[in-house]
Amino acid sequence: MTEIINRQYFLASRPGAMPTTENVQCRDVPLAPPGPGEVILRNLYISLDPAIRGWMSDAPNYIEPIALGDAVRSSVLGRVVESNSPDFAVGDVAMSVGAWEQYTTAPAAGLNKLDETAGIPLSLFLGALGPTGLTAYFGLLEVGKPRAGETVLVSAAAGAVGSVVGQIAKMQGCRVVGMAGSEDKCRWLTDELGFDAAINYKTCGDYVAAIQKAAPEGVDVYFDNVGGEILDAALLCLNQFARVAVCGWISTYNEANPPGPVNLWQVVARSATVQGFTVLDYLDRFAEGIGQLAEWLMAGKLKYREEIVDGLDNILPTFLRLFDGSNSGKLVIRIPE
Amino acid sequence: MTEIINRQYFLASRPGAMPTTENVQCRDVPLAPPGPGEVILRNLYISLDPAIRGWMSDAPNYIEPIALGDAVRSSVLGRVVESNSPDFAVGDVAMSVGAWEQYTTAPAAGLNKLDETAGIPLSLFLGALGPTGLTAYFGLLEVGKPRAGETVLVSAAAGAVGSVVGQIAKMQGCRVVGMAGSEDKCRWLTDELGFDAAINYKTCGDYVAAIQKAAPEGVDVYFDNVGGEILDAALLCLNQFARVAVCGWISTYNEANPPGPVNLWQVVARSATVQGFTVLDYLDRFAEGIGQLAEWLMAGKLKYREEIVDGLDNILPTFLRLFDGSNSGKLVIRIPE
Repeated sequence: MTEIINRQYFLASRPGAMPTTENVQCRDVPLAPPGPGEVILRNLYISLDPAIRGWMSDAPNYIEPIALGDAVRSSVLGRVVESNSPDFAVGDVAMSVGAWEQYTTAPAAGLNKLDETAGIPLSLFLGALGPTGLTAYFGLLEVGKPRAGETVLVSAAAGAVGSVVGQIAKMQGCRVVGMAGSEDKCRWLTDELGFDAAINYKTCGDYVAAIQKAAPEGVDVYFDNVGGEILDAALLCLNQFARVAVCGWISTYNEANPPGPVNLWQVVARSATVQGFTVLDYLDRFAEGIGQLAEWLMAGKLKYREEIVDGLDNILPTFLRLFDGSNSGKLVIRIPE
Repeated sequence: MTEIINRQYFLASRPGAMPTTENVQCRDVPLAPPGPGEVILRNLYISLDPAIRGWMSDAPNYIEPIALGDAVRSSVLGRVVESNSPDFAVGDVAMSVGAWEQYTTAPAAGLNKLDETAGIPLSLFLGALGPTGLTAYFGLLEVGKPRAGETVLVSAAAGAVGSVVGQIAKMQGCRVVGMAGSEDKCRWLTDELGFDAAINYKTCGDYVAAIQKAAPEGVDVYFDNVGGEILDAALLCLNQFARVAVCGWISTYNEANPPGPVNLWQVVARSATVQGFTVLDYLDRFAEGIGQLAEWLMAGKLKYREEIVDGLDNILPTFLRLFDGSNSGKLVIRIPE
C-alpha cells in the first residue's frame, strides 16, 4: 500500500491577536496505520467555529488548550478509509473531534456514524444539525429559559448559532430581536427568519438606545455570542429576573487583555443571571436535540445559511472571516473527494 | 403640644467617591402630624448597610435612587409615638424603611411590628434576624444552592451578611472558606464560627494562590460581597457548574468608573452562573426566613457580632467604616430613648 500523506495545519505558536501564518503552519506527515479500535477518516468537511480561537490560547478553558505542535482541533466529518473497529466499515461516514487536516485518526468510541441515505446534506451535521444547532438549542432553552411573550435578544444573530437561536425563540412565542453587522444580514433575519426586529450594530449608533427601541418592553433573555460593548449595552436593557446565556465572546477573542463588562453590576440591580455554558454540558441529550432540530428542519420551520469553501489550504484565511463578520451562517471547509 | 423637631441627615449632592459632609448634611425640621393610616416612629436603631451607598448614586438600581434633598434611606427600628392606624398603638415597636433621622413617618401597611417581650435584643431585627440575615439566608440557599460536600467561598466574611452565610453553609455540610481583612476577623471565623479556613486578604498576597490553598477542591459557590479583584480571583478558582451569588460589590461603590471583572469569561470555561439578587426578591418568604434564623439563633447555632454606635450625629463617619473594613459584624446607630 502506498504511504498516505496527511496534510495538517498545526499550531506553531500561540496568537497574540488574529492568528497568522506564523502561528498556524502547514506540514505534510505520513499517516500512521490505525491503532487497536481506531478508525481513519478521510475528511470531507471541517467545521470552523469561533471557539477554536479560544483553544489556541492557553487561558483556562472548558477543554485543554491545543498543544503547541498539534494540528488545530475542530469538528470534522469524513469517510472511513481504514478501520480497526467492528463498528465502522470502510465507506461509512462519521463525525469526530478532529483537526485541520486531511485525515483524522480517532478511537471508534468517539465517532458518530451518519446516515448518508437520509437525504440531508452532510455539512448540516456540522451546522444546524450538529454542535452549532445543539449549542443554540440547549443554550436558549436550558440556559435562557424563554417563556412565551418574553423578549429575546440575540447577538451575532446571522451567525450559525444566533440564527438558530432566534428561530427557536420565535417558535417559543417570544419577541425576537437580532443584532448583526450588515443590512443584508438584518433583512435576512426579519424577512426570511421571522425575527421581529434587527439592529445593524455597525450603523445603529448608541447600542442602548437601539436595543430599547427594538425591545420596548425590555430584554428577558440575552443570548450573548459577542461580549464587549454589546454585552455592556444589553446589561442596561435587562428586565428583572432576566437571563444572559453566554455562548462565547467573539469580539474579545483576538484582544490580548479585553476589559470586563463594566455594567455587570446590573445583575444585582435587576436580579439577573449570567450563565456560561458549552454544548458539552448536554452530551447525554444530543440525540433529543438533533431529533428536534431535524424535525423542524424537515418541516421548513428552521432555515439556515451555510458557506462552504473548498480546499484545506484555504482554512486559515477562511477561519479569520469569522472575526471580521464577512461570513453569514455556518462556515465550513470542504475537501472534495 | 410642643412642636417636635426631627433631625435628619439628607443627601445634598451625589458623592463621586466616599460620601462627605458636603454630600450628606444635617437639618432640623418640624415633624408634621401623621397622615391618614400613618404612624410616627421615634427611631431607636438605624441600620447601616453598604447598599445605602448604591442608593446615593443615580445609576440604575433595584430601587429608586435617593432623591437629592431627601433624608438618606435606610432600615429603621423605632417606637410608635403617634398613630393614625388601628394596627399600631403608641409604645409599640416596629421596623420600617426609614431614613437617617430621629423620627420616621410611614404608612402602617409598610411597618413590621416586633415583639419586645420575646427577649431578643431589638437591634438583631436589623441584623441577623432582619434584612441582613435574610440576605444571607436566601442568597446562599436559593442563589448559591450549596450541596453537602461542596466548597463555599465567602468574601467580607466577617461582615453582617458574610458571617451568617458561612455559618449557614456549614450547617449544609459544606467546606467553608472566608475572606476578611484582619487576623482578628479571621480568627473569629475559624475559632468561633466554625469556618474551615479564613484568608486575610490584606496580607495573603496572590488571591488566586490563597484561595486554591484554602479550597483545594475548587470553589462550588462563591458568595460575593465585594466584587473587584477578589471576584476576578474567585472566577479563576470555580469548579464546573459553580454558582456565584452576587450580593453587592462594596469594593467598587466609591469608585467613579470601576472596571468590570476581566475574568468573567471563565463562566463559559466552567459552565458557571453569576446571579445577582436582593432580599426583596424573597419578600413573600420573609416569615419563613426569620423563623429559621431565629431558631438557629436560639439554639446557639448562629452567632453574630454587632457594633452599636450611639448618636445620630455620628451616623456619617460610622457609615464610612463599612468601607475601610474597620467594623466587624452588623453596624447600627442607636439613638437612646
